[in-house]
Amino acid sequence: MTQDPLDEIRFNDQGLVPAIAQERGSGRVLMMAWMNRDALRRTLELGEAVYWSRSRGRLWHKGESSGHVQVVHDLRLDCDGDVLLLEVEQKGGIACHTGRHSCFYRRLQEGAWVAADPVLRDPEAIYGQEAAHE
Amino acid sequence: MTQDPLDEIRFNDQGLVPAIAQERGSGRVLMMAWMNRDALRRTLELGEAVYWSRSRGRLWHKGESSGHVQVVHDLRLDCDGDVLLLEVEQKGGIACHTGRHSCFYRRLQEGAWVAADPVLRDPEAIYGQEAAHE
Repeated sequence: MTQDPLDEIRFNDQGLVPAIAQERGSGRVLMMAWMNRDALRRTLELGEAVYWSRSRGRLWHKGESSGHVQVVHDLRLDCDGDVLLLEVEQKGGIACHTGRHSCFYRRLQEGAWVAADPVLRDPEAIYGQEAAHE
Repeated sequence: MTQDPLDEIRFNDQGLVPAIAQERGSGRVLMMAWMNRDALRRTLELGEAVYWSRSRGRLWHKGESSGHVQVVHDLRLDCDGDVLLLEVEQKGGIACHTGRHSCFYRRLQEGAWVAADPVLRDPEAIYGQEAAHE
């Protein structure tokens, strides 16, 4: 008798679970997005991160337009079973749609959010003219 | 004119935002919990992580019963403004109520979740007889 490991995940009432992507090697937290059951199943099949895009209401294979895919090396689940942690290799070294390494580039400094990380590549160069959220 | 940096955070329809705690030095992701506006304000005042406990419906000063407080060294916000990343010093080296370093101790191995990290301290020794979620 084998149990589906996905059955141990506590998806929320929208069928979603937060998924944190952490970069292998650097340990940098790159982003947090959401997965539903299908997104996670697809992630495990592909070996690359597939999220559920809440804004577009569809599966989102991260890097599908930018080429900045996330190769998944390790998957962890927290004690409550309601958060996933992915250890990924970030292709292109850019996780953020702003062209930065990590989405967490704003740092609280003296009471204000300050962009603390450089833009590595112009989003227009990554996504073309219609630079928007991937 | 100064703007409250909390105004730039996009709390969800329950007034909450996910907050990821990452350990300074090791880079280990320790846990993800939720903050409301008050929890974040209290975190900034105290310099220690205060979350919103959804199960207990109240502010939760992490470590209030265990002593395992999280001293906050850095606070970051993601590009969408809807996820926080805290860089913390984890007192006692234990973030998880199971007595482990990190809450992300279960690892997917050959189709099953396997406890990959040791229990560093018996939860009963941490919380007393009524060992439960802190």
